[in-house]
Amino acid sequence: MDLPQIVDLRQSPAALRVQRGVMRLLRGQHDFCCFAEVPLANGRRADVLAVGPKGEIWIVEIKSSLIDFQVDAKWHHYKDFCDRFYFAKPPELDPDIFPESEGLIVADAHDAAILRQAVEDPLPGARRKALTLKLARLGADRIHTLMDPNEM
Amino acid sequence: MDLPQIVDLRQSPAALRVQRGVMRLLRGQHDFCCFAEVPLANGRRADVLAVGPKGEIWIVEIKSSLIDFQVDAKWHHYKDFCDRFYFAKPPELDPDIFPESEGLIVADAHDAAILRQAVEDPLPGARRKALTLKLARLGADRIHTLMDPNEM
Repeated sequence: MDLPQIVDLRQSPAALRVQRGVMRLLRGQHDFCCFAEVPLANGRRADVLAVGPKGEIWIVEIKSSLIDFQVDAKWHHYKDFCDRFYFAKPPELDPDIFPESEGLIVADAHDAAILRQAVEDPLPGARRKALTLKLARLGADRIHTLMDPNEM
Repeated sequence: MDLPQIVDLRQSPAALRVQRGVMRLLRGQHDFCCFAEVPLANGRRADVLAVGPKGEIWIVEIKSSLIDFQVDAKWHHYKDFCDRFYFAKPPELDPDIFPESEGLIVADAHDAAILRQAVEDPLPGARRKALTLKLARLGADRIHTLMDPNEM
């Protein structure tokens, strides 16, 4: 079945494989509900943003190659929008390129595992509230667009 | 394009036409982001649940025939889960069958209009917070299922 385009899919096939495994892990093992490619108020875009049962927000930034990591000098800005931040990498990428201070997930297209837990740095209440509302509206709109593609 | 099944589509074709028009109205004219068929904590299912820019929650209950309205003795339970409650009806259905105390929308598959505004009855803060989180997670899961249909 060809699925309609849900997100803009600017990511590489390698990054999409990692994304799929990460989302399976977070939902299946941690009961987090996952959005892909979430635009943030700072203009960046979270590769995976997951919402936990108590409203916890985790962001996962996918880096599929060394250069992909090296060219991104601003990844720390994601940490303003989540309680925990993880990098995610494919199995073949050296884990030692990632800062030891951050969480790390290894993933392929089928599964994933947390190699290093992220430190929790809780969001301020007002930001969590605003972000949760924004996500509820984002999810509704993405589904609505699929249900009624001719209307937009 | 055949769309994948997003919701369970237990509704009649007549109700689905009304649903589409209602969702277009709420998004296009009121900046509300709409979910279809939202399960509520009381076991009922809201036909359309819409989230406003400030977190307002509106529920729209679709009645496509007189009998459809008459057999539902428990519609008032929706009002525990929203700030405003509306019935929605197709153009051919008599508006006078609906209680004057409630909001009323007329809709076809292309458009809709509010015939009578609903009275605002604001949700308690804790319920709004819990519902908004639930919607964020619901939206994420519905999209995730579409992105990765073989995983569920």
